[in-house]
Amino acid sequence: MQQGATRAEIDRVVRMIEELGYEARPMPGAQRTAVGLVGNDGRVDGSRLEALPGVAQVIHVSQPYKQVSREWRSENTVVTIGKDVRIGGSAVAVIAGPCSVESEEQIVAAARAVRDAGACALRGGAFKPRSSPYSFQGLGKRGLEMLALAREETGLAIVTEAMDEDGAALVAEHADCIQIGARNMQNYSLLKAVGRLGKPVLLKRGMAATITDLLLSAEYVLSEGNSQVILCERGLRSFDTAVRNLFDLTAIPLVQRLSHLPIIADPSHGTGSRDSVPQMARAAIAAGADGLMIEVHPTPDRALSDGAQSLYPDQFASLMPELRAIAQVIGRSVIPAPGTATATAG
Amino acid sequence: MQQGATRAEIDRVVRMIEELGYEARPMPGAQRTAVGLVGNDGRVDGSRLEALPGVAQVIHVSQPYKQVSREWRSENTVVTIGKDVRIGGSAVAVIAGPCSVESEEQIVAAARAVRDAGACALRGGAFKPRSSPYSFQGLGKRGLEMLALAREETGLAIVTEAMDEDGAALVAEHADCIQIGARNMQNYSLLKAVGRLGKPVLLKRGMAATITDLLLSAEYVLSEGNSQVILCERGLRSFDTAVRNLFDLTAIPLVQRLSHLPIIADPSHGTGSRDSVPQMARAAIAAGADGLMIEVHPTPDRALSDGAQSLYPDQFASLMPELRAIAQVIGRSVIPAPGTATATAG
Amino acid sequence: MQQGATRAEIDRVVRMIEELGYEARPMPGAQRTAVGLVGNDGRVDGSRLEALPGVAQVIHVSQPYKQVSREWRSENTVVTIGKDVRIGGSAVAVIAGPCSVESEEQIVAAARAVRDAGACALRGGAFKPRSSPYSFQGLGKRGLEMLALAREETGLAIVTEAMDEDGAALVAEHADCIQIGARNMQNYSLLKAVGRLGKPVLLKRGMAATITDLLLSAEYVLSEGNSQVILCERGLRSFDTAVRNLFDLTAIPLVQRLSHLPIIADPSHGTGSRDSVPQMARAAIAAGADGLMIEVHPTPDRALSDGAQSLYPDQFASLMPELRAIAQVIGRSVIPAPGTATATAG
Amino acid sequence: MQQGATRAEIDRVVRMIEELGYEARPMPGAQRTAVGLVGNDGRVDGSRLEALPGVAQVIHVSQPYKQVSREWRSENTVVTIGKDVRIGGSAVAVIAGPCSVESEEQIVAAARAVRDAGACALRGGAFKPRSSPYSFQGLGKRGLEMLALAREETGLAIVTEAMDEDGAALVAEHADCIQIGARNMQNYSLLKAVGRLGKPVLLKRGMAATITDLLLSAEYVLSEGNSQVILCERGLRSFDTAVRNLFDLTAIPLVQRLSHLPIIADPSHGTGSRDSVPQMARAAIAAGADGLMIEVHPTPDRALSDGAQSLYPDQFASLMPELRAIAQVIGRSVIPAPGTATATAG
Repeated sequence: MQQGATRAEIDRVVRMIEELGYEARPMPGAQRTAVGLVGNDGRVDGSRLEALPGVAQVIHVSQPYKQVSREWRSENTVVTIGKDVRIGGSAVAVIAGPCSVESEEQIVAAARAVRDAGACALRGGAFKPRSSPYSFQGLGKRGLEMLALAREETGLAIVTEAMDEDGAALVAEHADCIQIGARNMQNYSLLKAVGRLGKPVLLKRGMAATITDLLLSAEYVLSEGNSQVILCERGLRSFDTAVRNLFDLTAIPLVQRLSHLPIIADPSHGTGSRDSVPQMARAAIAAGADGLMIEVHPTPDRALSDGAQSLYPDQFASLMPELRAIAQVIGRSVIPAPGTATATAG
Repeated sequence: MQQGATRAEIDRVVRMIEELGYEARPMPGAQRTAVGLVGNDGRVDGSRLEALPGVAQVIHVSQPYKQVSREWRSENTVVTIGKDVRIGGSAVAVIAGPCSVESEEQIVAAARAVRDAGACALRGGAFKPRSSPYSFQGLGKRGLEMLALAREETGLAIVTEAMDEDGAALVAEHADCIQIGARNMQNYSLLKAVGRLGKPVLLKRGMAATITDLLLSAEYVLSEGNSQVILCERGLRSFDTAVRNLFDLTAIPLVQRLSHLPIIADPSHGTGSRDSVPQMARAAIAAGADGLMIEVHPTPDRALSDGAQSLYPDQFASLMPELRAIAQVIGRSVIPAPGTATATAG
Repeated sequence: MQQGATRAEIDRVVRMIEELGYEARPMPGAQRTAVGLVGNDGRVDGSRLEALPGVAQVIHVSQPYKQVSREWRSENTVVTIGKDVRIGGSAVAVIAGPCSVESEEQIVAAARAVRDAGACALRGGAFKPRSSPYSFQGLGKRGLEMLALAREETGLAIVTEAMDEDGAALVAEHADCIQIGARNMQNYSLLKAVGRLGKPVLLKRGMAATITDLLLSAEYVLSEGNSQVILCERGLRSFDTAVRNLFDLTAIPLVQRLSHLPIIADPSHGTGSRDSVPQMARAAIAAGADGLMIEVHPTPDRALSDGAQSLYPDQFASLMPELRAIAQVIGRSVIPAPGTATATAG
Repeated sequence: MQQGATRAEIDRVVRMIEELGYEARPMPGAQRTAVGLVGNDGRVDGSRLEALPGVAQVIHVSQPYKQVSREWRSENTVVTIGKDVRIGGSAVAVIAGPCSVESEEQIVAAARAVRDAGACALRGGAFKPRSSPYSFQGLGKRGLEMLALAREETGLAIVTEAMDEDGAALVAEHADCIQIGARNMQNYSLLKAVGRLGKPVLLKRGMAATITDLLLSAEYVLSEGNSQVILCERGLRSFDTAVRNLFDLTAIPLVQRLSHLPIIADPSHGTGSRDSVPQMARAAIAAGADGLMIEVHPTPDRALSDGAQSLYPDQFASLMPELRAIAQVIGRSVIPAPGTATATAG
């Protein structure tokens, strides 16, 4: 309550809380009175209380999300994509590939290169959300078919983005994990749709989303009955034009405390520059990420999108042993590429 | 180019620019060489150049949007919603109403109140994008029918949000202007869908969107053949918890220089607090906004959403004469409410 | 407390609060227990409590500042600079002049131009905080003498920046108000020094400062016994390169609710572009600012700093009548220029 | 130039560039003409050009800093603090200790704990910049004497903050490295003063400073003849209240490309929570940081400041072997604690 709030104003707040079906607990202090609402189950709209005369501020003590929280489920959720890529356990997943699927040759070459270097899953966009309507928008369904072919050739699980409900159904049919991009993190219709599809979902954090926003968006998917959700940090909007985004690695330990869902990091979008990707990929593993998503292109100079942040295949191949060694330092390993019987860390 | 870039590296950049079909213009300087690309028509993906060895930075001189720009069309676009509410001309539009449609009684009462105070259009959400899946999500189609009833009762034009393609078709059927919310500003599938519907669109700026992002999102609508787009500033993500959002009024003169599209301001979301709405509504008109979108609720204390930022009807009624007087200071007027023959400013 | 906090953990928090000399009030809820600390006088360091096992979060209910708050003093503070420029009353102050003092001719010409157009005080930097050590750093003491001369010639009160303790003493000697720039808003040694000098202080908001930070910095000055403080909004760090800063006009009504100190706005730094200054100057007055600080240069094309955001004298002269008319709409006036017997607007 | 800029406008820009003593290079394009300024030595104030009619935008191609840049000096600068702690070479430095010096017992206990765990230098504040004037402000000169005593007892080099010129002289006398805090990063008077003192400087990045801002602030120190500067990333202002700051680890590889100066990271302020410090300390080393600054307090529950982000001594002791192992993965080591004959790492 504001300093100087009258008895009547305090009583009105108490009454409104009770009308809403909760318990009110007034706490008079030296300067002002606080009123506790006990029993909030996530449905209380604070603004109804904030609107009352004499109210200074509504402060939320408990979190608005439920099923995604560590308090709801204390063990880690492990999400399986494809046959056997299990994300969220002690082994970390490296998902790699080009920004966009450009041709059969390109995607198969990329798939072979990243599998040979040790990746367990292939990324590659068939539906591309581009800021400009005049930029390359992806190959669509044909791109999905090329990804399916690359899976056949290499055994890699496939992760690819959907931008709308129809696209999500197509992705569910051809790929192993539906990516929801940063720009669609709060596209609730799409979140509900992928919740109903029941396929694993990779949910990227929006560029100005708080951790609470991210977890609430995941809650949309879980509330439709689908708990196969992997979160992904990919960089926030920055005031510094020296970087494309501001890569928030602290999100990793923070999400791991608050939620049982796995969280991976995308150092390619997170930094926007190939020259920083290896350092930040290593940093993400050291911070405890459950996986990485890295852009690798057979010929970055000729990429139709995001060339500047894509690694050359040999850069990626040099990075993998460093990632394995760092994982080992913190008692983890790296999920081996398909077809490599043992491999793990080291 | 980087300092110390070799002749061969510079030549490679020149060659790539020429391969892409443009003219290259090298400009050797004291410290480093710059290479100009002449004739960019918006399709050049800078990252292909950035990826080349020896390249320090790709700097865009011309804007990536086309049809929304002042250079494409020098006169203001005037968007007509409903029968005769013309936004973008010399008279400014005041759109008002509750955050959500809650019942027939509530929306009709709100419509009457805002019309009597001088609004020319009614806002009210039937589809509500809420951060939490457990918050009130709107009445859907039933809400749209209540809005249509309110229009019948008052003559106000109706502006209401759509969250997906199906919803947009329903909104186009029942209302006069389709609002795209901040969270969907980069939902390109939805933008293309409303572009095809041909109905006026109110496009809200995303909470971390640059002006270029906003204009590019509008370009998605225009590129589908629909130029009836109104832009709306509604506050950016802030680091200061003392406000809900950071209301960026400078966007108004800036957009008016860069684009021919009208831009309005939403001081309710822009500030998040009823106590700041009248001041910032006045400020928006003084800054040259082509209109306002203001939350007014018959009984804010009982609102199902955004109660704290909704004005009481009498607050709104006191504000309107101030808005008219400020509009007059800068040579504009306020669009009169339906049924009030003369009215305008003063 | 965290969900699942033990009885012993809660007791330990209660004990620590009592050891610190306050009253503890535990409030068990459905999901977790909250513990209220009653009687916080601003000296409690929350991190001591946050450090205890089982504690989820420390939430501050009362504000950490005292003497600057509306609750400490309910009437507005009026700060007098020079003989009779009273800032914080019903009349608004327009302070104008060039970014830097460059020469006697330049500053006297600027002073005459802004006085003739209706300004009541002159701004102009003698000590310039420049991001680069190689940029023009101001004329120093000689610049202060030129400002004093301009005051003699025009009767305008003088506002100019100090960057350190020695400079502040010099400014106090030659000018009427010591400006503390955004970059020094949290230079606490300097704040204490100007608190001790007892001269009026114009404190600019830092580029990523919350309103609480700003008020706490003002508290440093007041706590040294100097309550002659004017606050100034001048734009925040933005992620959008289309503007120099993000001008946060909502700070005006917000500060006016929280504090009794006057607050003015600087649309020149706030926008960074002459093309947006008139619009945002009008908006600031409409939002209720107690004054404006505007850059005006006799020949902006030849300015040694900030040329692009300085108004031409004739632009400023056209703006003043609009500002007076808008002030009048909200029941205020503009402080007349020295020598103009009667108050103009209102 | 703007689209539609006249020949005369372009000529005027060319003339102004030539008057300033540089070469102008007009580049007519399909949509607009660009004019290159050749030979910029860092002294050109872009706003003079921006102010000319017909100019759309001034774009800087070369960086405004000189002596701090990699282009000025290609080998890494190694800064020696105390007898033999060399920062910027292949071994990384771990600087640890409490936020504030609180008593002789506390600082000596802290020094012993961090040395025994493997730190090579001691941090601890005697002058504390606190947001509130009512918070603990440090023990001042007495605190410096306690730090000197701790050095005698342990052999650790001492790093401590100065807030003004007088304080800097005292710190230079008693300690081995003068820390400039984030809030003073753009206190140019102080930067020049520590430049003249010639003692090693630890310069923390401001909470909304770009990398260019940080490097320009370092340039102030170098331009006074002192090149013994260590940069420090310590977190940026965040919009997410779930963290104290937004820790920008990408600054590390970025600064290392742009500058020859060493850069370290402070995960304690960078995250604000003890629960994220070990993860982010590991991440910083993996990203290539030249060192770490970590808060460790003998009894964090009783700390007078920053208790929640200080590690317990045993947490710090467990962290050190992980840091050594990660350093080894990327071919580096950790500087051994004083008195430990051989390098530990490896």
